[in-house]
Amino acid sequence: MSLRVAVVGAGYWGPNLVRNFRGSPDWELVAVCDLDEARARKVVGDLPVDVETSLDALLARDDVDAVAIATPARTHSRIALAALAAGKHVLVEKPLASSRAEAELMVSEARARGLVLMCDHTYCYTPVVRKIREIVRSGELGDLLFVDSVRINLGLVQPDVDVLWDLAPHDLSILDAVLPGGLAPESVAAHGADPIGAGRACVGYLTMPLPGGAIAHVHVNWLSPTKIRQMVIGGSRRTLVWDDLNPQQRLSVYDRGVDLDLTSASDDLAERRSAAISYRLGDMYAPSLPEGEALAAMVAEFARAVTQGDAPLTDGGAGLRVLEVLEAASTSLTVGGALVPVHSNDSLDLVELADEEALV
Amino acid sequence: MSLRVAVVGAGYWGPNLVRNFRGSPDWELVAVCDLDEARARKVVGDLPVDVETSLDALLARDDVDAVAIATPARTHSRIALAALAAGKHVLVEKPLASSRAEAELMVSEARARGLVLMCDHTYCYTPVVRKIREIVRSGELGDLLFVDSVRINLGLVQPDVDVLWDLAPHDLSILDAVLPGGLAPESVAAHGADPIGAGRACVGYLTMPLPGGAIAHVHVNWLSPTKIRQMVIGGSRRTLVWDDLNPQQRLSVYDRGVDLDLTSASDDLAERRSAAISYRLGDMYAPSLPEGEALAAMVAEFARAVTQGDAPLTDGGAGLRVLEVLEAASTSLTVGGALVPVHSNDSLDLVELADEEALV
Amino acid sequence: MSLRVAVVGAGYWGPNLVRNFRGSPDWELVAVCDLDEARARKVVGDLPVDVETSLDALLARDDVDAVAIATPARTHSRIALAALAAGKHVLVEKPLASSRAEAELMVSEARARGLVLMCDHTYCYTPVVRKIREIVRSGELGDLLFVDSVRINLGLVQPDVDVLWDLAPHDLSILDAVLPGGLAPESVAAHGADPIGAGRACVGYLTMPLPGGAIAHVHVNWLSPTKIRQMVIGGSRRTLVWDDLNPQQRLSVYDRGVDLDLTSASDDLAERRSAAISYRLGDMYAPSLPEGEALAAMVAEFARAVTQGDAPLTDGGAGLRVLEVLEAASTSLTVGGALVPVHSNDSLDLVELADEEALV
Amino acid sequence: MSLRVAVVGAGYWGPNLVRNFRGSPDWELVAVCDLDEARARKVVGDLPVDVETSLDALLARDDVDAVAIATPARTHSRIALAALAAGKHVLVEKPLASSRAEAELMVSEARARGLVLMCDHTYCYTPVVRKIREIVRSGELGDLLFVDSVRINLGLVQPDVDVLWDLAPHDLSILDAVLPGGLAPESVAAHGADPIGAGRACVGYLTMPLPGGAIAHVHVNWLSPTKIRQMVIGGSRRTLVWDDLNPQQRLSVYDRGVDLDLTSASDDLAERRSAAISYRLGDMYAPSLPEGEALAAMVAEFARAVTQGDAPLTDGGAGLRVLEVLEAASTSLTVGGALVPVHSNDSLDLVELADEEALV
Repeated sequence: MSLRVAVVGAGYWGPNLVRNFRGSPDWELVAVCDLDEARARKVVGDLPVDVETSLDALLARDDVDAVAIATPARTHSRIALAALAAGKHVLVEKPLASSRAEAELMVSEARARGLVLMCDHTYCYTPVVRKIREIVRSGELGDLLFVDSVRINLGLVQPDVDVLWDLAPHDLSILDAVLPGGLAPESVAAHGADPIGAGRACVGYLTMPLPGGAIAHVHVNWLSPTKIRQMVIGGSRRTLVWDDLNPQQRLSVYDRGVDLDLTSASDDLAERRSAAISYRLGDMYAPSLPEGEALAAMVAEFARAVTQGDAPLTDGGAGLRVLEVLEAASTSLTVGGALVPVHSNDSLDLVELADEEALV
Repeated sequence: MSLRVAVVGAGYWGPNLVRNFRGSPDWELVAVCDLDEARARKVVGDLPVDVETSLDALLARDDVDAVAIATPARTHSRIALAALAAGKHVLVEKPLASSRAEAELMVSEARARGLVLMCDHTYCYTPVVRKIREIVRSGELGDLLFVDSVRINLGLVQPDVDVLWDLAPHDLSILDAVLPGGLAPESVAAHGADPIGAGRACVGYLTMPLPGGAIAHVHVNWLSPTKIRQMVIGGSRRTLVWDDLNPQQRLSVYDRGVDLDLTSASDDLAERRSAAISYRLGDMYAPSLPEGEALAAMVAEFARAVTQGDAPLTDGGAGLRVLEVLEAASTSLTVGGALVPVHSNDSLDLVELADEEALV
Repeated sequence: MSLRVAVVGAGYWGPNLVRNFRGSPDWELVAVCDLDEARARKVVGDLPVDVETSLDALLARDDVDAVAIATPARTHSRIALAALAAGKHVLVEKPLASSRAEAELMVSEARARGLVLMCDHTYCYTPVVRKIREIVRSGELGDLLFVDSVRINLGLVQPDVDVLWDLAPHDLSILDAVLPGGLAPESVAAHGADPIGAGRACVGYLTMPLPGGAIAHVHVNWLSPTKIRQMVIGGSRRTLVWDDLNPQQRLSVYDRGVDLDLTSASDDLAERRSAAISYRLGDMYAPSLPEGEALAAMVAEFARAVTQGDAPLTDGGAGLRVLEVLEAASTSLTVGGALVPVHSNDSLDLVELADEEALV
Repeated sequence: MSLRVAVVGAGYWGPNLVRNFRGSPDWELVAVCDLDEARARKVVGDLPVDVETSLDALLARDDVDAVAIATPARTHSRIALAALAAGKHVLVEKPLASSRAEAELMVSEARARGLVLMCDHTYCYTPVVRKIREIVRSGELGDLLFVDSVRINLGLVQPDVDVLWDLAPHDLSILDAVLPGGLAPESVAAHGADPIGAGRACVGYLTMPLPGGAIAHVHVNWLSPTKIRQMVIGGSRRTLVWDDLNPQQRLSVYDRGVDLDLTSASDDLAERRSAAISYRLGDMYAPSLPEGEALAAMVAEFARAVTQGDAPLTDGGAGLRVLEVLEAASTSLTVGGALVPVHSNDSLDLVELADEEALV
């Protein structure tokens, strides 16, 4: 039997969710809810799907197992908390919430009630990111050395968020999905510039020292005349290059790198280091990628999580981790780019909760 | 009549200088000087050029107008100061010196004696950089918005310097040559990582806020399996992209960008901003570049400066400005990436000197 | 008042026509006709559009000004002739017909009745091809020297046609649209290979000598692991390169080439030639391209032609010229690649007709 | 003990041979011979190498085991035949001779005397071509399906040869080296154009049907504003793409293709074909290539052949096969592009000789 879902919000993203829930064998779409009835009706068309204009009425229905929220970000937490309180599983369009505090509340609430809270980090469900996740997690790359991600283009200057909040969530959510430990920087430094006087940063750089001496760096830019979407994940054994604008070779895995073997005899560390450095110049391979639409895989993952009582790939925690980095980045911007801890005091409870969880 | 030059140092770079001074119509190469006579003899071969093994003897000669120094960096300032004291014009292989303090001394000494002090920032004499300089200085790009430079490759881990000191001088000296005001950041933030335990940063990022809200950023990396040498110079009117690994289209100038016109009627700044943003999506052009060897152009510039008593394109000040940024960057690395002022107190004298000069 | 159109054929291509006629301000879609009523109903959905299952009934309707035919190629001429006989303007999916003889009949019939016969060479309505047409026809390239077109990919081996008939119509129809004189080779040579035993050529090459010593060449290939869609149009003044898989720089116009100036004094032709050759190495520019969907522009062009009683860009003659080349190419294939005249005797009448027309 | 070699011809290519023989551990360079003594002296410089101005005197010397000929092509056969008659092994700059008849004589003479006759097809000794040869001959690609080679650029219009004779020898000699059976087309068709009135073809296409239904095609062009050097070798199992202008990924081997399995049950061949076609979309890999200078490898191969009494990779037969194709191509050009047999009657003797040899 199919799971029954309602989509809340019939604006920009809602129709995509409607189309994919309708096309999914796992889901039955029972209702679309929007304050603006005409807008909801237009999305529903002649589909056998109810239109609701009251969130309370929707959440009171017995025939709704889950809701998918595609409303403005500032309303995410209020709607999600109400849905969780009504016992519904919840999918939220990114960003999970408009602040980290709200996101923490949502994550706690979902955990307390044993319900699925999932964030629609769509990119994480593309075939290429799933393949990257598979490669990174297989250990094939060895230890993580560095991540460098560039996402630049002549882009729409957003009226409400800066370029970091607009574009970096893609990079951050992808890192969260593919790195074995998820997105877990201790601190973040952010630099930005608003050279056109737009009122917010149009060029942004994030730097995140990672455990083990590694580093992650993200460059986002609304002002670049050329479009680049590239991520390099450097490992001690192999290095992966993802060039999303090259459909003929999106992914390349290089058996190239610098090796350091400190087991030599010299007493002098500098000398041992010099002697120990060698270079690998091996082959490269470009794995073939399956076809597949990201949104279809995303709604399938939501169904799987609900059915199996399991955390989805991009759960509420993932959404929260992205917000934590973005908030720390915003703080860093205001203090001239200094490193800002990602986990401040007020989130200790959550960290502890997570630790307890790990013990179970 | 030709100018007479001697090359000091017959190691790695010396032979290139010998070859180019010999090939130049402006110069007569009279001597090559090296403590290791055999090494000097090998470079000279059967050319009608003297071999000297004593710097003092060389500098005492009347038939030497200028010396070109291609010795290890730590010896640059000592040799250059001696040559200046002997009344010789001086060309120094980059870096100008091994510290900013030494460089300041060299610059002061040359100025006091009215001699040319030039730094061999070879890249600045390539046809492509000269064309970039011409384009930027013509005003064609409008106001400077951002510079993003990437220079990454699987590179030799240097035994004595980190990746910032190894590679970023290229980017910095180029910026100094092409930007109308030269390389003049007030401060610099640097992040680095040594994920392979090499004993020094192998991945590095420099961020430099520039006057007028612009920003410059440099990414250097010894661990990348793919080679990228790209610089984007974004302007309010046009944006230039230099891809040095694409010989068929090294330079592209885009008439694309984001425009902001705040002269609208609204009292609300945010509203005015939103209404005022527009996008240009014009043509791109790729200027043809003349042929020409950088080193030949460099020695010609040295001759021009000596003859005309004029500052060369890459004078001692340029070498000093690069060192200032690198020293501030090293400081930033040690303090976790915070912005570090480039002009600290002890260089005030020099700044004042420069100001006085500007008043003349 | 809108023109009224019916779409005949509700298979693969029909729905695209339905969508575009529905979205056009110029057209009112009044009916979809298919022998298979269910298929037609599915395409119509809940649109206020009639479903017809009889071509005769459709053509008998007074409220149909034009029909668009999207049925299998072997049925094109029969349906088109019936529609023309019924006084309807006709748009035909490519190829115009399954043979040149049929196409000639269709062209004659449309001309005799003063009705528009148009072939849906969709590619010709893309922004990039329209820009190429504009550039070539402006004379900016100078005299045509050569055309080289490559369209290769791992492609579906077609059950009924070889790779020349499957892919080359794109190149040929584009050439017809952009060259000032249209596609007018006197002869064509074709080479092909079926190395996998598919029963038809999977690799094909077309060579067409053009007036004035120029040459056009087309390479089509179903077996290539990499996808290339590139056309170079070389002119005496400039050369245009179209790389359709590079959305960031689809079109490049080079001011580069070889010049020959034979006006020198020498009596010896070979010597004069040698002395007279020079090379231009000027700038390149990449014109910006407007956005726009090809099919929307195509249906607009159909409306324009009907309203103004004018020949559309891709009229029946264009469809016929493509078929003429393909038939000659097939003949060339059977005779080992020898040059085969494109205009054989039996088409003299048509040529004469065209000549008469030119005199009017 | 080293082999002793003399270089004949001190023009454009001679100095390269001098440098490489001098740098080789296998060879002792004993003399450089040129009618123009000054030119020979300039190449020799202060090396301990004799200068000869008489070919007869040179060939009469006992201390010369081999000669390397770098004179104009029309003199190759006369000098080579004289050297062979004097018992010297012979290396000839490409082309082996200026006609096929001369080349046949040279091959016969060398065979009769048991001496090495080698042609300097330099490209065949590059690391990339050696790797291609290794891959093709390993059987990894399966059966050969097609070869498509493109070598275009804005090139020097040669005063004496057309673009086919200027550029296609590279492609043909490479094919000869890498294909398991060497370059053995039964016939060749050539098309060319001289749209600028240079007096010879500036754009050229070669088509060569190969055994087993495969096809090889070569496109050479002096008038292209963009430079392309690409060769695709399609096989039934894998396909190799060589892009010589992409130093970061010169070679890519694709596990992609179209498969045909005709072992199905249907009686209808067309149906069996349709059912039997499937597509492989596997990974790609880019093998790493060793460093290495082609000319150094070439002179080493010459030494190996002399020492071991073995045929070198690019022996006289290779040079002859290239000339056979070029002569047939020239004939095809004059007859409008028809297929011309490569092995005409007058070469039957040689073919028979080869057959006899094969029986030994």
